[in-house]
Amino acid sequence: MEFLDDMDVSLVQSMGNDASVIAAAKVSTKGVESLAELDQQATPGLIRYLMTNRHGTPFEHASMTFYMHMPIFVFREFHRHRIGWSYNEESARYKQLEPVFYLPSANRPGMMQIEGGKPGQYQYEDADPALALHIREAIHDHSIEAYQYYQVLMDRGVAKEVARMVLPVNIYSSQYATCNPRSLMAFLSLRTKRPEWSYHEEDLRDNVECGRAKTPSKPQWEINRVADKMEAIFAKFMPLTYQAFCDAGRVAP
Amino acid sequence: MEFLDDMDVSLVQSMGNDASVIAAAKVSTKGVESLAELDQQATPGLIRYLMTNRHGTPFEHASMTFYMHMPIFVFREFHRHRIGWSYNEESARYKQLEPVFYLPSANRPGMMQIEGGKPGQYQYEDADPALALHIREAIHDHSIEAYQYYQVLMDRGVAKEVARMVLPVNIYSSQYATCNPRSLMAFLSLRTKRPEWSYHEEDLRDNVECGRAKTPSKPQWEINRVADKMEAIFAKFMPLTYQAFCDAGRVAP
Amino acid sequence: MEFLDDMDVSLVQSMGNDASVIAAAKVSTKGVESLAELDQQATPGLIRYLMTNRHGTPFEHASMTFYMHMPIFVFREFHRHRIGWSYNEESARYKQLEPVFYLPSANRPGMMQIEGGKPGQYQYEDADPALALHIREAIHDHSIEAYQYYQVLMDRGVAKEVARMVLPVNIYSSQYATCNPRSLMAFLSLRTKRPEWSYHEEDLRDNVECGRAKTPSKPQWEINRVADKMEAIFAKFMPLTYQAFCDAGRVAP
Amino acid sequence: MEFLDDMDVSLVQSMGNDASVIAAAKVSTKGVESLAELDQQATPGLIRYLMTNRHGTPFEHASMTFYMHMPIFVFREFHRHRIGWSYNEESARYKQLEPVFYLPSANRPGMMQIEGGKPGQYQYEDADPALALHIREAIHDHSIEAYQYYQVLMDRGVAKEVARMVLPVNIYSSQYATCNPRSLMAFLSLRTKRPEWSYHEEDLRDNVECGRAKTPSKPQWEINRVADKMEAIFAKFMPLTYQAFCDAGRVAP
Repeated sequence: MEFLDDMDVSLVQSMGNDASVIAAAKVSTKGVESLAELDQQATPGLIRYLMTNRHGTPFEHASMTFYMHMPIFVFREFHRHRIGWSYNEESARYKQLEPVFYLPSANRPGMMQIEGGKPGQYQYEDADPALALHIREAIHDHSIEAYQYYQVLMDRGVAKEVARMVLPVNIYSSQYATCNPRSLMAFLSLRTKRPEWSYHEEDLRDNVECGRAKTPSKPQWEINRVADKMEAIFAKFMPLTYQAFCDAGRVAP
Repeated sequence: MEFLDDMDVSLVQSMGNDASVIAAAKVSTKGVESLAELDQQATPGLIRYLMTNRHGTPFEHASMTFYMHMPIFVFREFHRHRIGWSYNEESARYKQLEPVFYLPSANRPGMMQIEGGKPGQYQYEDADPALALHIREAIHDHSIEAYQYYQVLMDRGVAKEVARMVLPVNIYSSQYATCNPRSLMAFLSLRTKRPEWSYHEEDLRDNVECGRAKTPSKPQWEINRVADKMEAIFAKFMPLTYQAFCDAGRVAP
Repeated sequence: MEFLDDMDVSLVQSMGNDASVIAAAKVSTKGVESLAELDQQATPGLIRYLMTNRHGTPFEHASMTFYMHMPIFVFREFHRHRIGWSYNEESARYKQLEPVFYLPSANRPGMMQIEGGKPGQYQYEDADPALALHIREAIHDHSIEAYQYYQVLMDRGVAKEVARMVLPVNIYSSQYATCNPRSLMAFLSLRTKRPEWSYHEEDLRDNVECGRAKTPSKPQWEINRVADKMEAIFAKFMPLTYQAFCDAGRVAP
Repeated sequence: MEFLDDMDVSLVQSMGNDASVIAAAKVSTKGVESLAELDQQATPGLIRYLMTNRHGTPFEHASMTFYMHMPIFVFREFHRHRIGWSYNEESARYKQLEPVFYLPSANRPGMMQIEGGKPGQYQYEDADPALALHIREAIHDHSIEAYQYYQVLMDRGVAKEVARMVLPVNIYSSQYATCNPRSLMAFLSLRTKRPEWSYHEEDLRDNVECGRAKTPSKPQWEINRVADKMEAIFAKFMPLTYQAFCDAGRVAP
């Protein structure tokens, strides 16, 4: 049995770069001459213009394949992203799932939910250490028991697809996910939590880390964690596109 | 605690009918005159031609919204269908899930998996009564224990989104799913198991119930069950389209 | 020969209403009880919340099929909308196109383009009456000549798909287009021109006609005209959703 | 003025190869170990199995960007492919189109259409030399006249987006188009004409050039020409996937 309190994301392959955005955009005004852009160093001006004015299609001519290892409850949220996303995931029908479970760390933020409030406006707070310990024990022990049930059923020859019914949603699975910069930014805008954009210029001056969202979102901490890792990879892969996304208030074009 | 051995599907709303297919197809040759088709009784000829020759777009101008109640492991398979599908599902972040679990009936087919074989070519067999009883007990007992863990965590004020980590994938959830006839037929062709299409005419003569597939699929029994219920609704909603789908070997256009 | 200076749009069929949005959204917090919403009068609160916070999926459980008659150059822009849109169009391979051409009216706004400026920031001005007359004559005469070439080729037995190569992009074609409220709002936000959103409350007070856009767009007048007609139909079909779209600065959820 | 009788297609960038398909497929049975496949020489067995059984998603984890130069009437057909396709095209609103027109060569197949027959079952025949000459003259002369109208309007300061209304659909435009192997195969199956698949094995023995289609299609010659060029590029890019597509009767998975 293995217990993890984090998710893994790595970049498997990619196509294109900031210059792909510029070439695709310039075909509208330059036709064949736009091909020359692919051999040049990209500059931020046009990318920023496209992002701010929500000209989205030039951001579709690049591609990234990620490999990710994360619990099923994160998969459940992830697979709701349909457009510009391709998935292949580990199958509990064809493979015995490994005994690897998600166990939130004691300082995972917002473990507790304050009574009352509308959905979407819930208030959360951290668990005090004793309670955090208790929560972790419960999840830990239950994971072990669940996997024992699973193991017993498998040993009896029960079909994998039936035996897996006892597995809880904190068990890990893995997948390849392929997307383009536009579909990735749409994902990031929904699955990362950032402070709200301010229309007072002085507030924005300290916005050093791509930190403010025009439409703030309230993702669960775990998928936010996955998104943060994808975002860090994206920032290196297409730095000008990424910076423009940040400066535009994290609105996908 | 409630245990169910079946899934619920109902049609919530719909748009169009077989005549919508014909009108959409005839716009290509008749322009505005195609509108008249909407007021006429549809006939099978053109629909059959479109289906056989895989002219898919005319089958996109109708719509169905289904409400469905089914276990999470079925949702996991369902949400892999991205194109022409819209989903809204119960949220375990915003709602305490009800203690309703899937417990396969003792005669659920293929409960056991025979050793060996490649994935996708597994052999299954039914469980003998004693073993079926045992399997059901395991799933039953585990469901109760899992829900107790869930309840205890909820009682302590743990956030719903954290407490739900102990829930197994046989707990029920519900959703609205909206699709069009084309995306529905693509779903049905992959999520129903039917005997293989035969190129001997005499074999096909007994094909009374839309029974043969040119590309047979091997869905899990539970999602097949959901698909069968959707198929029955679809057969009533657009009988000519449905019959053409059957006659074409269950290949989505 | 027929010359038109406008485009036709009509609603052929539809499914759902504002209550469909609410039911779909409430399944997340109420499960099966959300079905009751379908029988109730919708209220604006939740719809407004979903729109402002860009919860898009509940706006996908309704459907509209439009019939539209418009010139090919408008089709060219229209068909760039891929997601949540289904099309069937008149075919110049299978049907002799009717001699119906678009001839911009003399007071079609922005007939002239002022020298200089970057693409996307062009300045336009109206044509003076003499020039407008000249422009119209040129388009009128050219349309007649083009159709004569077409006719001659057709009379000689040239294949329709070859003969049509001489037809200009101002000839009319027609189509069925099916979409959902979300994909329609995405279309409207890009294909209608509205004054820029203001963050001064007093400016917004006179915003009586859904008039301000957070991300202003610069569509060509003709597709804007089509979009306006679709918007008027949508406003009647789902008044609360439409109002929320307007109030949110015409940002599609 | 330039007259061309062919279309240009080139590969601008790509991601992945046959091994990407295998890795993506094997994640279902091997989880993290599937990553090792990316460093190995791909073998045909699994790819063939996936293709034949229509497991489509593993074919989505690669990407190709094409640059293409072709007449507008081909664009009109091309842009009907919505899913798994991204486009950026030259804009006649922002750029004066070049005077480059498509002029079918005298031996372009099927220039003439035989009277009668249903749409989709038309019979075509080649034009005799004298008539071919006449057809070419008509298209040639009309193209010149149309561009003169265009030029005069542009010279008067008419907006590009208005002046272009006189341009015929045989004028060239250019675009970037990005797709994945699955969406490309769906395109190829519809936009290439191949002899019908035979269920007699002896007929298939001579199937040396990926020549038979289980669902034959009847594309226009010009888009078929574009598709053939894309197919040749694809055959080199992913030879095992391509061979499996051919062997499976050109049915996209």
